[in-house]
Amino acid sequence: MEPTESHPHAIHLGAERLEALMFRGVCHGAIGNRAFGGQVLAQSLHAAGQTVPAERIAHSAHGYYIRGGRAGQPIVYRVEATRDGRSFSTRQVQAVQDGEVLFSLTVSFQVAVPGAAHGLPMPDVPLPDELTGTRGLFGAVWDRQPIPAQLFDFRFVPDGLVPAGSQMYWVRAWEPLGEDPLAQLCAISYVSDIKLASIASGLDRAELPGHTLSSLDHSIWFHQPARADEWLLYHQHGRAVSDSRGLASGEFFTVAGDLVASVAQEVLIRPRR
Amino acid sequence: MEPTESHPHAIHLGAERLEALMFRGVCHGAIGNRAFGGQVLAQSLHAAGQTVPAERIAHSAHGYYIRGGRAGQPIVYRVEATRDGRSFSTRQVQAVQDGEVLFSLTVSFQVAVPGAAHGLPMPDVPLPDELTGTRGLFGAVWDRQPIPAQLFDFRFVPDGLVPAGSQMYWVRAWEPLGEDPLAQLCAISYVSDIKLASIASGLDRAELPGHTLSSLDHSIWFHQPARADEWLLYHQHGRAVSDSRGLASGEFFTVAGDLVASVAQEVLIRPRR
Repeated sequence: MEPTESHPHAIHLGAERLEALMFRGVCHGAIGNRAFGGQVLAQSLHAAGQTVPAERIAHSAHGYYIRGGRAGQPIVYRVEATRDGRSFSTRQVQAVQDGEVLFSLTVSFQVAVPGAAHGLPMPDVPLPDELTGTRGLFGAVWDRQPIPAQLFDFRFVPDGLVPAGSQMYWVRAWEPLGEDPLAQLCAISYVSDIKLASIASGLDRAELPGHTLSSLDHSIWFHQPARADEWLLYHQHGRAVSDSRGLASGEFFTVAGDLVASVAQEVLIRPRR
Repeated sequence: MEPTESHPHAIHLGAERLEALMFRGVCHGAIGNRAFGGQVLAQSLHAAGQTVPAERIAHSAHGYYIRGGRAGQPIVYRVEATRDGRSFSTRQVQAVQDGEVLFSLTVSFQVAVPGAAHGLPMPDVPLPDELTGTRGLFGAVWDRQPIPAQLFDFRFVPDGLVPAGSQMYWVRAWEPLGEDPLAQLCAISYVSDIKLASIASGLDRAELPGHTLSSLDHSIWFHQPARADEWLLYHQHGRAVSDSRGLASGEFFTVAGDLVASVAQEVLIRPRR
């Protein structure tokens, strides 16, 4: 996933290296002119991953969204090499526009350890081939900025098959992403932010237009190697809601039912004035 | 919870202010001579919280354990004032011994917003008064370093009433912690690390002595004000396990069934040589 090629995933999910610890990525925006948090997360991870040996694989990342980013303006990523131990490397990334930090991410990498993972069981839902493609399901908001739908095929599991407070969709990159494990994890990170805030808010669709949702943080754990150019089921579910904030969790499963990644995000909920 | 008084919770969970952005805490250790992660977390939060106005309440914290700490040697906490916005403040804390960073924590504070939270329902378990006190249940490891049991009363829910891969206990500080909301959240943070790693590992009790568990990270979200000197039910459950790492989640509930805090932690699992 070399960001200098014309591969659309590379352009949108990757960060181009400017200097040893400085990178830059395009910012395609999401709602209105605001940057899309999943893109900032993916590019931050891509920047961090280019500063560690290739055999060290990201196993977790925790980030805070500090300010909103502006779409259409490049984002610069500054990486700090916090630590390189025998088995683990830690990197701190700051995403910057106009000299101000938008997002701060800590990423931990571990020398790859063979062996599969097991965990929460996959929900019993229809397979992607049994569901129709759903570019249109993103609705009016996403139709204005349809880049996620240009990059990924989404197949939503019908509401009637999903528990209240949850959402599930199958997702797969439209094009192969290549054999770089980092590119695959960046793509999963990008997707992990799609539609998560609305589940975290606990608001139903009728209430959403009356409120503004802002991601506060984002955590992701990669349990084993995974590919975003093969189908993954993303199960998002709410955990807690207050008047001002909501927390959601999520899990990515392969078609074979293997849990490959887990996610958590808190969002700020504000009534629209 | 002034750490200069002789209150045992203040001594163990608090950090004494040395300078505007520098603090120091005692380190009581846990297993062998290693520092206890929950204490480092609580003291980091206490340090960060002393640098923001009292009406700004911690709503989340994400930290990475970078090196093991030494029990019996003070830990110094350096706080960086990352941001002070209209509603939110962000702080970065580094816990240091011998010039090396042991733990790095980012904490986000929000001006208190009134209103209760709701979320995951509380599991149906016996109330603490129906369960016996369980200092002894910490077993041999904790009996050598019983400070957590000196600070908190633990009432474990019997295994037969708990789903596989889960653990639940009621917990309450033996002494009142006062009216400072920060002291209450520090105490919940301290407790949140107790017994969590073994659930995250997915190992049963017979396998645990054959393995070394090290916490890799720790996330905590505070959904609403809560008191650690009143009974809280802590439900810990495994989410994913691989050959080298495991992930667990947890929730704290009041006796009334209100979800007040959520937790996530990944641990490193190594066979003992």
